[in-house]
Parts: sequence; structure tokens; C-alpha cells
Amino acid sequence: MSNVWGKNIRLSVFGESHGSAVGMVLDGLPPGFAPDWAEVARNMKRRAPGNNPWSTPREESDEWEILSGFFQGKATGTPLCAVIKNQGQRGGDYTPNLIRPGHADFTAYYKYRGNADYRGGGHFSGRLTAPLVLAGSLAGQILRERGIMAGARIINVGGVKDAFMPIENIMEVSRREFPVYDEKAAVAMQKAILQAKADKDSLGGIIECAALGIPIGLGEPFFASLESVISAMMFSIPAVKGIEFGDGFALADKRGSEANDQLYMDEQRPAFLSNHSGGINGGLSNGQPLVFRIVVKPTPTIGREQTTVDIVKGETVKTAFKGRHDPCIVPRAAPVAEAGLALCLWDCLLDKFKEGAKL
Amino acid sequence: MSNVWGKNIRLSVFGESHGSAVGMVLDGLPPGFAPDWAEVARNMKRRAPGNNPWSTPREESDEWEILSGFFQGKATGTPLCAVIKNQGQRGGDYTPNLIRPGHADFTAYYKYRGNADYRGGGHFSGRLTAPLVLAGSLAGQILRERGIMAGARIINVGGVKDAFMPIENIMEVSRREFPVYDEKAAVAMQKAILQAKADKDSLGGIIECAALGIPIGLGEPFFASLESVISAMMFSIPAVKGIEFGDGFALADKRGSEANDQLYMDEQRPAFLSNHSGGINGGLSNGQPLVFRIVVKPTPTIGREQTTVDIVKGETVKTAFKGRHDPCIVPRAAPVAEAGLALCLWDCLLDKFKEGAKL
Amino acid sequence: MSNVWGKNIRLSVFGESHGSAVGMVLDGLPPGFAPDWAEVARNMKRRAPGNNPWSTPREESDEWEILSGFFQGKATGTPLCAVIKNQGQRGGDYTPNLIRPGHADFTAYYKYRGNADYRGGGHFSGRLTAPLVLAGSLAGQILRERGIMAGARIINVGGVKDAFMPIENIMEVSRREFPVYDEKAAVAMQKAILQAKADKDSLGGIIECAALGIPIGLGEPFFASLESVISAMMFSIPAVKGIEFGDGFALADKRGSEANDQLYMDEQRPAFLSNHSGGINGGLSNGQPLVFRIVVKPTPTIGREQTTVDIVKGETVKTAFKGRHDPCIVPRAAPVAEAGLALCLWDCLLDKFKEGAKL
Amino acid sequence: MSNVWGKNIRLSVFGESHGSAVGMVLDGLPPGFAPDWAEVARNMKRRAPGNNPWSTPREESDEWEILSGFFQGKATGTPLCAVIKNQGQRGGDYTPNLIRPGHADFTAYYKYRGNADYRGGGHFSGRLTAPLVLAGSLAGQILRERGIMAGARIINVGGVKDAFMPIENIMEVSRREFPVYDEKAAVAMQKAILQAKADKDSLGGIIECAALGIPIGLGEPFFASLESVISAMMFSIPAVKGIEFGDGFALADKRGSEANDQLYMDEQRPAFLSNHSGGINGGLSNGQPLVFRIVVKPTPTIGREQTTVDIVKGETVKTAFKGRHDPCIVPRAAPVAEAGLALCLWDCLLDKFKEGAKL
Repeated sequence: MSNVWGKNIRLSVFGESHGSAVGMVLDGLPPGFAPDWAEVARNMKRRAPGNNPWSTPREESDEWEILSGFFQGKATGTPLCAVIKNQGQRGGDYTPNLIRPGHADFTAYYKYRGNADYRGGGHFSGRLTAPLVLAGSLAGQILRERGIMAGARIINVGGVKDAFMPIENIMEVSRREFPVYDEKAAVAMQKAILQAKADKDSLGGIIECAALGIPIGLGEPFFASLESVISAMMFSIPAVKGIEFGDGFALADKRGSEANDQLYMDEQRPAFLSNHSGGINGGLSNGQPLVFRIVVKPTPTIGREQTTVDIVKGETVKTAFKGRHDPCIVPRAAPVAEAGLALCLWDCLLDKFKEGAKL
Repeated sequence: MSNVWGKNIRLSVFGESHGSAVGMVLDGLPPGFAPDWAEVARNMKRRAPGNNPWSTPREESDEWEILSGFFQGKATGTPLCAVIKNQGQRGGDYTPNLIRPGHADFTAYYKYRGNADYRGGGHFSGRLTAPLVLAGSLAGQILRERGIMAGARIINVGGVKDAFMPIENIMEVSRREFPVYDEKAAVAMQKAILQAKADKDSLGGIIECAALGIPIGLGEPFFASLESVISAMMFSIPAVKGIEFGDGFALADKRGSEANDQLYMDEQRPAFLSNHSGGINGGLSNGQPLVFRIVVKPTPTIGREQTTVDIVKGETVKTAFKGRHDPCIVPRAAPVAEAGLALCLWDCLLDKFKEGAKL
Repeated sequence: MSNVWGKNIRLSVFGESHGSAVGMVLDGLPPGFAPDWAEVARNMKRRAPGNNPWSTPREESDEWEILSGFFQGKATGTPLCAVIKNQGQRGGDYTPNLIRPGHADFTAYYKYRGNADYRGGGHFSGRLTAPLVLAGSLAGQILRERGIMAGARIINVGGVKDAFMPIENIMEVSRREFPVYDEKAAVAMQKAILQAKADKDSLGGIIECAALGIPIGLGEPFFASLESVISAMMFSIPAVKGIEFGDGFALADKRGSEANDQLYMDEQRPAFLSNHSGGINGGLSNGQPLVFRIVVKPTPTIGREQTTVDIVKGETVKTAFKGRHDPCIVPRAAPVAEAGLALCLWDCLLDKFKEGAKL
Repeated sequence: MSNVWGKNIRLSVFGESHGSAVGMVLDGLPPGFAPDWAEVARNMKRRAPGNNPWSTPREESDEWEILSGFFQGKATGTPLCAVIKNQGQRGGDYTPNLIRPGHADFTAYYKYRGNADYRGGGHFSGRLTAPLVLAGSLAGQILRERGIMAGARIINVGGVKDAFMPIENIMEVSRREFPVYDEKAAVAMQKAILQAKADKDSLGGIIECAALGIPIGLGEPFFASLESVISAMMFSIPAVKGIEFGDGFALADKRGSEANDQLYMDEQRPAFLSNHSGGINGGLSNGQPLVFRIVVKPTPTIGREQTTVDIVKGETVKTAFKGRHDPCIVPRAAPVAEAGLALCLWDCLLDKFKEGAKL
């Protein structure tokens, strides 16, 4: 088990897709912090289903209730618990014994010896990312007061790619309903998603995340490198199967002379001639924009017939899964990645404050 | 700071490249465990420099001394401390003020306000992976008694690729001095490395890691998914810039019907028709071979002239770095990745035992 | 901040006395565990106020709602969130600026820079022990299946002492409404409490906790000795100011020959001639009954006039505090201590299972 | 296992009494910190044996070697490893099968299934406190730069008590070779120790610890109260069996009106009329002197005949233990308690800096 995250803050998540609620407890908010709840709501809506043709029609208002840690319009500094009640569950769409290929159904069945809540993936549902977005949205506001901003855009959906984007545009693009830089690419991606939906199939894609304004020295040797912290968070998001920082896998084909970011003095300050490293050297932020990409696999639930097993009867079966699901989870995963990144940066920033305070 | 790793075990690392020693403290070894030290020595040698033309000529015997936790030929069960004394340091090759592009020199200088041991990268040196290999080698032996085996092979060096390999061969290939499946590819890779060396340049590459025999259900929701645990460890290894599980980034271009691993009953047991997921669903191992790849960037230290800064004088300078360095760190990183993977699996396995013990 | 507890399980608590709710998230319950909710309710009632003349008249039904981790009558194995809504708050009784001597009002005001929820102590209220009892009650049931039982009795209230009790009686006494061994002592204690109440004053006392049936070897060197784990938990309970194991402070006046527990072979098994150590040697359980005592200070809120400060105006004032409060918190603290002990033993037991599983 | 301590720093300890060495790894030292090694040596000597008639004649120079994290006379900010080689071991004095009553011999034998290093208590030896004093001595220097000082004095040895001491004297008394306030009491205590030694017996005692100059708000709700943090550390010290803060167990016999520390405005600042709480309210420091006491049991190893078991043969035996041991460990435990307290305060102070940095 590890439903708790954080070195300096403590984020605890809980809930199941079709249970009473999902939610989180966040310990470490600055006392006196007055959240911009409207912004939180906008971020929650970016993640919520049912808002557009490319997401699942399951409707979830994703309204949250704050149970603690909030008083007279401000965070008290003690743990903030937020609960998001589930609505519009249609548990009947799910059967306990038919394993959906690509899902956690199989692994959860064995791990919990048949006791997991199987409805809609239970605790393994993407629905658990709702509290993550809530927490990350608060983190993002705290970072912004320090001049740090984190965003995410889609750069690939089912092979349709976004154009090159100067990284400075990340925040503007990040806030779009369909966060793609190039308008034409956005249209083509949406078309591809709807085509996959029509084919009772699904698409995956790639999300690029970036952060601007981060100070030098976030991240800690040896085991808490900034890449370690961020990657661990990203792989908590269901469907993420890969991550690369800076030039990433392309570095395998490059020489050192091509991969190194050379330096020079820009006025009185050291600066870099390139950013192949994605803003991280030796596991520590170097002050350049932080850039990484995550790959999101195609939604496993599809309407096409697949071969699978009835885990209770022990039989091979062929079946097409019903239920409301996203033909492509990538657009809804973008605000989740952004939230996760914000949480990581906030936590690492607290390490840095600690450090600054030493001596 | 986080020099300590592990949920169920505790691994603490310390040391600098050109200080007195590097080492580790490992708490959680089973009492009565009698390590095969000859095997540890073989793994240490795989990582050690100076053994062949494609690694740095810096000679390090990498002999270790056990200071605690070991009595009468067996682990006592209390913390085992192992110290690896540094030898053959040539600190004079390093200057504190010239930043080596691509290294931690720049970030460490600021993070530690000029107090870091700059010689050879100090605490950020690849030399810190020696204690990791030592610890991982012990972990590997513990896993083997449970029927679990972890290995690593090189699949790309500077664009030269290994052939397809049935995953069952991983352990045999892993133990080779140059762990590549296809002999011709191995020769071509070595040639490419020596060419880069002759060019005073360096190469990166990709390592494929795999584990066989792992039980269903390793990994924990939400934040300790098996991918989270493994990726965090891999990004602790200097020079790693990306990781992907199963089909990884290729999943962006696939449809759900191509990406899902369908199931069937094989005799009395559920089995999979493919392994696009790399053996992990919902963050939990599914009993298939665990497969992932990491990208290792080209060694940043190169003999070519580069533009950089003198951090003390605040000047732009052009310089070619001397010192003994690897033209390609990939072969030496393979046993490190294998060791890191073994540590992850051991720690997650203890979660599973805990779980099995409950009720 | 640390609202999260546990090495092998994760317990997160949240809430304020007069906010919406208090609650907890518990990760690590065995999948398939079917709690005896009636027993949980009995334990909750032992802690709840308003049930008898010696506790505060504030009425709290302390009914809880399970939001997650529970399905078809059983724990799923994923995080269980339980929320206890607050009722009958009379926030008007509290003023933000008058510091109640002996309370957290003063320290919380500074720590949270005036943003803490001051009503009824906010997050520092004894009300936070309600989720602890809930969690501990589940832990107690898990322990019982392993033959381990933990209980608590009152041995001193305001100087009135219980009689000597053979430790085997702990469970029977623990379940009493007023958990005192000697009936006459119980009557005298209650009388003392009511007298203090009549005097607008309050009493403290001492609780003895014990556990039977624990295996040898619970607890871990160096920093997770069984005494370290238990004492840290006990000092989380508001008003606890001391703890001693076995003969405790009396050992200062003894010689080694009086303090050592000598051993002999009882049939085929080693046994002890005494239990001065309270069942712990070297920080590890030795199989004897675990025995310790905690001191609970008198309830700080009293109706008598006291000198204090108006923290906002910066003035010395004399005031008598109103509000409903317990003349003696000791009886309600007993089930809390018992719950805390059960949580500690469960967590340490998981370490032991892990250990047993190794090799 | 938990050989690692700290929320914000990481202290890892290792070693056995009669193995090669004991030592520690400390991660979190401020970069640029230049320790006063002479002061460290003085503290190490206070703890070391063989220096006076009331401690064991086993001679240990307790010289340490720094292996990492230290460069050019300063802490680098990366993990500092210090190794203290063992000397003058006389392993022959110890037998693996005779259980010493009151020691960890029995529990360690079972926990580690006969594999523990039994010589001199192995990992459970008081010798493990040497690295604690080293680490704590560094912590103490860091605290002092913030105006915080921690000390310890003996207030009871075998029933002989020190006189009342105004708490401001703690630092001066703490540095004495025999840290007792009243000279006559010191003489009486030493006499009692030598008498016990002559009787082949041993004495326990009580140590009072105090810290001056601490800011308001150290400690964290719920589970990391300052008392929780300190008590967990104190119970890591071998032979400690109890702890009480402020008036401690005496509070059981007091009324709220006697136990509360009333407040008033002293010039412009709130002040307290008393310190029954030992400087902690609600688990947080209130700015008053922090005061607590720990009880240290009599050294279990005594020269008198005792009944015990031969754990291998399974026989009851009567034996008198030889070997060099302290007739009273209290004087040597005082600097250990002081070191542990310094570590706790440093770690909690980092929480506070973090907090101050938030928003």
C-alpha cells in the first residue's frame, strides 16, 4: 500500500470509481492561504468527463466538499480533507468475473483475493485522479506566488502530432479545452479520436509537460532526483507507460557533443545555449525550463470483441465490453499531469526552503 | 536530501568520487543469509572501470569492506555497512571553477553554495553506483531463492541496435561482458564506441531490463505503482533520461485493440496472448515478464572543445576537458540498472509478504 | 506536519472539533476482512462524550460513514476512509483571542499565524481521537485473530488509586464503562471527579495499558524500538505527559539484581521469574505481557478564574472559561490509549511477518 | 528494521559492539558548515568508557574517521559518513548461549534466529550511542547558531537525588564530567555507584534534559508532536524505560487549577507564570524552557549469580557474568540524551523553516 505521497507535504488519496466518493487529505498547506476556488473548478472541469464528444458520456459534476483544514475562507495549515461524491454510477455495466484486457481487473483480482471493488476499476479507476487535480491545483497556486508555472499540452494522439512550440507558450496552450498548440493539429487529433470511437476502438498519445520559472537546485541526490520524484508521480497516473526528460530517448542516437548544453555568460549570469537536458542536470533543476513527455496508452476498454477470461468460472470467453468510456484519455490526462507536476515542484521547493534555512 | 531508499528495506548511500570512500548501509537483510560473494564480485567487476577499451582507464579495484551486520559468514539481520575505498584518484584533473556541460557541476555549485566536492563530480559521480551494485547483487540473490531473476542488456549504442531477443534469454545475455544478444551488433557497437573515443566524443544508448518469475501483484496503488518504484530508482542512476514499460512510447501510435493484452485460459491458468504492457497492469505486476527500457545519455565529459563558464570568475571560456572518462557509459550502466531493478523487486516483494500475512 | 502514521500501514487523520467533520483514511487493511462493527461502536461509545456524569455534556453520536475501501461487507484492501460528522457544536462558546491556559490555543495561534480554527481547540481537540479509536478498533480485531489482545485500565484519578491487578484481568476490566479493577476504587474515583466538577476544577490520572499474547521480537532496532513506537503514539493523544514501561521510574531506585528479570526453563520453554521490564528487552517484545502506564494531565479548561492573555489585544485578563468540558478526561482516554496500542502492535506485527517471509 | 531516523534529515546508524566498527551516515548538514571538532571530541569523551571509576574499564578511544560529505574543512551538504572503529574487544568474555537477564540477548536470539552477533550485545549494545553522540554534537552546534541550547544533568542515581536547580543552569552543569548540580549530591551518587560496584551490583537513575531558547511552534500535529518525536528518540537509547515532560507523573495528583500554566503580558509579550507543561502545549513548543526526564534502568550485566537459561542446550543455569561493564550507565547516558535531544530539535526546526517559507 501507499496511498500517501510527499516528502514535505502529505497527500493521502482514497476512493473507488463506483463507491460513495473519492477524495484526498492534504497536509502542509500554508496557513492563511486563500485558494482561488474558481481556478480549481476550471481545472477540475478540464479533467471531468462528459463535457465534450471525445470523452466518456458518464456525467460527473466533480463537486467537492471540504471537511477540514479550511476556516473563514483560508487554509488553517492543518490537514485539508476534500471529498468528491460519486454520481451517475451505473455499476450494472460491470461484471466481476470478466477481465477487461489492459485493465487492472486481473491484477487487482489476485492482489486483493477477489475482494476489490471491481465496478469501473474500483480504486484503480482514472477517477482517482480527480482528487489529484484538486490538490495539484492548490499546489499550482502556491507555486505561482513564487513565480513558478507548470503546464501540459498534447503533442501526439494516435500518431497525429502537434507542431513545434516555443516552450514559453506552455501556459497559454495548457489552459485550452483541447490543449494543442497548432489549431490544425488539434482538429486532426479530434477527428482521429472520433474515428476511433466510431470504430469502437481507442487511441493513446503523448503529453508534453513543462515548468517555467523554477529555481536552480530543486531535486535531491541520490534517490530523490527531480526526475525520480516526477517520474514516480507520473506513473501513478493510470495509463502512463513512459516518460522522458529533455531529448529523452533521442539521446541514444546522439553524441556527447550534440547532447551537452553548453554554457556562456549572459550579462552577469551563466546561461545555456540549448536545453537537451530538459532543465535537469545531475537530478537537480538548472534553472532552464523543465521539459518532459509522458506516453498515455490507448484506453483499454473498447467496444470491439476481445478474447479474455471469466476469472471465476475459469473459462476463455470472447466479449465486447459495454459501458461508457473515453475513446481517448489523453485530453483528460493533460490536466492530471499538470497537477502532478505542480505537486512535485511544491514538495521539492519545500526541500529547498529547508536547505536555505540551514545555517 | 534523500540518500535513503526503500519502503520495507532501508538502503543508505554515501560518498564522493574522489573522497575517501563510497559505501552503503543496508538494513533488512534476512538473518542467516549467506551471500555468494564471488557473484557480488562478478557484478562489481561488470560495473568497474578500467577493464576494457570502452570504459575509462581509471582503475578501481572496487574492493569492499564489510563493517557491520555480518558475523560468522552470514548476515545477522542488522544493518550491513559496506565501504569501498577510493583509489587512483587524480583530483588534479579537476578544477572547481570550470563547469563541465551536461554534468551536475553547475547545479551542485549553486545548491551547495560552492561547498560541494567538485572533484570528478563528487557525490554526483557515477561512482556512487558501486554501492548500488553491491546492494543490488545481494537483492538479486534473495530474489533468486524465490525464483525471480532480473537482467539487463544493451539494445542501442549511438544508433547501433541489437536484434530482437526472446525475453527468456535475458539472464544469459545479461551476464556477458558486453551484454548484447546479437554478436554482430555487439561488435558494431564496440566499434562505434571506439570511433567516438577516437573523435574525442561520446555515445549514449538504450538498456532493456527484464525480470522473470515475478508473482502477480507486486506494486501498490496509488503512489507506489511498480512503474513508480522502478522509474524512481532508474532516474537515480546518473545519465538516465527516459524510461518506458512494455511498448512504451510506441503506444502513442497504437489503438486499444492493438495495445491490449488479451487473455485466455492456458490449461487451468489465465494467460496472455501478448505483452504490450511489459508485465504491469494498473501499476501491479501481472505475472508476465517485466520489461522496460531506459535511455542513457552520452557521457558529458568529452575531449572536444566546448563553450562553458568559469563559475568563479564569471567568464565565458572555451575548453576541452581532460581526465579519464568513458566514451560510452552504457555497458557499465547495464549492471547498475539490473541491480536497481533487483532492489525494487525485493522491496515490493516484502510488501507482498506483508500482505499475505495479513489475516 | 505529520497527520500520517505507520511504517507498514498508513493512517491519515484530519478534522477540527467544530468544523464539518473529523475522520481518517486507513491503508493496509487485509482484503476480505469483515469488521465487527458492533464492537467498533462499543469502543466509540467508550470514548464518546455525554454518556455519563463524569464527561462533558456535549453530545456527539460519533456515527461514522465509510466512504471507500469497503465493499459487500468486507474491506477491499484499498484505503478505507471514515468520516465522523460533527454535531452539536456550539462555536459561540469559544473566542479566538482568549488563550486557555494549558491548551494548544497559544502555540497554535503562533504556529498557524492566527489562521487556526480556534473553536474547541480545532485540530488539537481531543475529538481527533475519535478516528483513532475507530482505526484502533479495527486493528484490535485483526490482532485478536492472531491471539493478541490489548486493553487499558485507570489506575489513578486525582490521587485515588486502583488496587493491584493481576495483568491477566486486563481485557475484562478494559471493557467496563469505568475501567477500574477494584470496585471501591472506582466509586472513590468517580466521587473525586464529581467533587472537582463541583469545584469548577478538573483532575488528571494514570492509565495502565497491557497487551497479552504478543510474540517475541516485535519492535526494531535502532530507532523503531517497541517503546519508541508506542511512546510516539501515546504522546499523540492530547493531555498525555509521561509514559513508563514495566517498573518505569521506580527503576531509578533499584539495583540491577532487583530489576533484572531472571529466566528459567519452564517445561521446554524459557520463561521469566518476573516482569520488571514490562515485556520489552532491547526494544523488542520478549513474549511476556506488555505493560506500560501513561499519565494524563487534568483537563485544562476549567470554570475557575485564571489569569491569561487576550492574544489579539495584547492584554492580561482574568477570566473563567465557559463551555462544556470534561472534569476528568482519563476515563475517555483509556479506550484511546487501547486503540493506539492496538495500532502499534498491528504495525509492528507486519514488520515481523515481513521478516518471517524473508528467505 | 529502522536504522534510519529523521523527518527532514536522515540519520542512519550501523554497527555492533564487537564487530569492526560502529558508525553513522548523516544527510542534511548545511553546506559550508564547519564543525568544531574539538567540541565533538569533548562530547564523545563524556560518553566514552574507561575514563573514570564509575564506568566500565573497557577502553575505547572512540576516534572517528570521516569518509564522505566533508571537504576542505567544511560539510559539503551531501551525506557525511563517520566510522568509529572498535578496539579492545574481548569477545571471549561472551558466550552465545547464556542469556544475560535484562539484556536483548533473549529477544535478539529469537528475532534473528540465532544469527545475531551476540558479543557484547552486538547491535543492541550501548556502543551504538557513540555515533548518536557524534551526530547530536553536530546538531547541537547548528542549534547554537540559532540560539538554541540543549543539556542534560543527572537528578537521581540509585535513589540519591540532586538538589533543585534553576533550569537556566542546565548548560553549565551539562558540561561537567559528572553532571550534577549539587556538589554534595554528586559525591553521594559516586559513592553509591562504587558501593554497588563493590557489591557486584549496579544502579539506575534519572536524567533531566532541558533546552533553552527554542522558538514557539516546534512539533507537528497529530503524530509528530514534539513529545512524540523526543520520546521516540529517547527510547532508542538502551536502558531508558520512561519519560515525562514537565510535571509528568506528578500531574496525576494535581487539579487543573494547579497544573495549568497561566499567562500574562510581560512588556509587549505573552509570558507564563509557571512551567508545569515542560514547555509544550498541544504537542508544540511554547517558547518556555523544554524540560523532561528519562529513567535509566540499572545496568543488567552484574557480577552476582543469577538464574538464567542456556538457550542452546535448553537448560536452567545459575551463573555470574564476567566481562567489563558499567556499575551505573547513567553518567554516560546523559550526553547521549543531550545528543538525541539536539537531533530532535534540529529536525523539528527544519519543519519550522519549511513552514516559514510557505507562502
